[in-house]
Amino acid sequence: MKAWKDNIRKIDPYVAGEQPDFPDMIKLNTNENPYPPAPKVEQAMKMQQAERFRLYPDTNATPLVKALAEFYHMEEDQFFIGVGSDDVLAMSFLTFFNSEKPILFPDITYSFYDVWATLYRIPYRQPKVDENFYIRKEDYMVPNGGIVLANPNAPTSIGMDASDIEEIIQRNQDVIVIVDEAYIDFGGQSVMPLVNKYDNLVVVQTFSKSRSMAGMRIGFAVANPELIQALKDVKNSYNSYTMNRPSILLGVESVKDVDYFYSTTNKIITTRERVKEELRKLGFIVPDSQTNFLFITHPKLDMNDFFNSLREHHIYVRHWNKPRISEYLRVTIGSDQEMDTFLSFANKYCKL
Amino acid sequence: MKAWKDNIRKIDPYVAGEQPDFPDMIKLNTNENPYPPAPKVEQAMKMQQAERFRLYPDTNATPLVKALAEFYHMEEDQFFIGVGSDDVLAMSFLTFFNSEKPILFPDITYSFYDVWATLYRIPYRQPKVDENFYIRKEDYMVPNGGIVLANPNAPTSIGMDASDIEEIIQRNQDVIVIVDEAYIDFGGQSVMPLVNKYDNLVVVQTFSKSRSMAGMRIGFAVANPELIQALKDVKNSYNSYTMNRPSILLGVESVKDVDYFYSTTNKIITTRERVKEELRKLGFIVPDSQTNFLFITHPKLDMNDFFNSLREHHIYVRHWNKPRISEYLRVTIGSDQEMDTFLSFANKYCKL
Repeated sequence: MKAWKDNIRKIDPYVAGEQPDFPDMIKLNTNENPYPPAPKVEQAMKMQQAERFRLYPDTNATPLVKALAEFYHMEEDQFFIGVGSDDVLAMSFLTFFNSEKPILFPDITYSFYDVWATLYRIPYRQPKVDENFYIRKEDYMVPNGGIVLANPNAPTSIGMDASDIEEIIQRNQDVIVIVDEAYIDFGGQSVMPLVNKYDNLVVVQTFSKSRSMAGMRIGFAVANPELIQALKDVKNSYNSYTMNRPSILLGVESVKDVDYFYSTTNKIITTRERVKEELRKLGFIVPDSQTNFLFITHPKLDMNDFFNSLREHHIYVRHWNKPRISEYLRVTIGSDQEMDTFLSFANKYCKL
Repeated sequence: MKAWKDNIRKIDPYVAGEQPDFPDMIKLNTNENPYPPAPKVEQAMKMQQAERFRLYPDTNATPLVKALAEFYHMEEDQFFIGVGSDDVLAMSFLTFFNSEKPILFPDITYSFYDVWATLYRIPYRQPKVDENFYIRKEDYMVPNGGIVLANPNAPTSIGMDASDIEEIIQRNQDVIVIVDEAYIDFGGQSVMPLVNKYDNLVVVQTFSKSRSMAGMRIGFAVANPELIQALKDVKNSYNSYTMNRPSILLGVESVKDVDYFYSTTNKIITTRERVKEELRKLGFIVPDSQTNFLFITHPKLDMNDFFNSLREHHIYVRHWNKPRISEYLRVTIGSDQEMDTFLSFANKYCKL
């Protein structure tokens, strides 16, 4: 074997949901938004001057920070912008989790957390969610090197009350608590206002779900200015210019179109509630969701078989061959038309 | 002090060149290209459908990889794409430099190398370039944990012969040798073809300089498929989707416009040679450059004073208060008109 192979960082990479691309497919497998970005995004794109691309972008994505600070009524120095929330979260792990004690996150949660911990050699422990997939707050009141909670949680779709999260933050003031609110705009209770109360809290959100901009890669963290500066220092030690010009420009337009944002998130919530009721009528077990997806199972059906059958009919949902969740599917809420096709298939399948 | 502060990664961040933005300024401080991106880039941008932004981008930036493989006559599995060459280089440090032995790079070179080494806690040693700023190949023929060479080197503008670099690669087959060719298209000798001969070679290039796309953040590595896979595994353990949709789409158009690429790089080379001769006539010492900048000093002038005087007249160049190079300025090659203004100012300044 070549000697250089000894010093290569070997890692089992995170495997993202498949990205099939057929004209007639129904893609409900990666929690993308069925609606286009705000109309102003398209207009701004067409107005862009390519001539400006020759210049480096703003390293702090200042126009986007200003727009977000205004929208959320926070200060500009409380924001950090990254290439999707994955970039922001990975950077946060590297910046904040340098203790010898294990960090804590649930056994069933976003499957990138253990990958980042492994990448950066951060010890971790995963308390089990209860039999109904609820996070038990007591599990996070033990000595630890930091905490990461997805709220609402993925792939379970279940949200936690802000008061329970506050209790966890309050009881862990010696470490950083990251709350990953990727899906918060679909009905969850954000803890962003608590950033002004607790200096150990980092709230992370994304433009990929509620803002229909997964293809633009924009995420952000909100925290006290000292934590934000630490993130910026690490980021500027990695790559000074991570956000390209179109992301900054189009991100601003998305934030400014407030009405469109509420109207599309509400449409998705309405569709989700309808689909949930329909699935329950078919005998599916469906926890109440605070996200743009449903986490479903059926006492009489094999979910892997159902997954494959959907797939054969070009309806893509997500399934994991993992302990505790192998009998569940995660189904993204698409347009009403897409969900009708899905429901009609589920209906026939249940009657087979 | 709050306990959480103990576990924050503290680092002196890389400080990028200032990014002033006045209407009448002449910006020769961050090695940006004075010409706009290829005309097809603007056309493609206006043709983009914002509706597609709701979907995640291609994790491997496949269309861009295909275009690059065709342009460089290499295989697709020899390419790794990142958010500027900084992203590619930082990821390469994390992936390839996990030895206890120090990695080697020159004392005068791109100032991000020691920052990445510090960020990832990689030991490093910096052999001194000679009194004329030439890299001494013998210095890289000692035990080490890896090698990074910028060729042509920055901020010196001096290129190395490909045969000398090959000797270094050949003598270091137990470690990874990274050759950072950010400026290679302005007259240097690329070692990219050697990737097919040496499996320990990683060549990194960027769209920020010769392709006028600093604002789009596109860089890439070329290496044997095993090294590329290791990079992809680490990248996919960090962020599956780093390249947004516009970067992939517009990057392809840039690569396809071959004539424009050669015509603009040649224009810059022509301007550079003219400016070099003019500066020498004024008594400046200017090494031959293989880049889109000149590294200049003057035996009778204080370069810090000259820098400040240029700045007062809204002509921005780069100066470092660092050992060995504090009496030098790095001057990006702008348009002929911009360089005439710079030369006219230099002319007057020399006669004061």
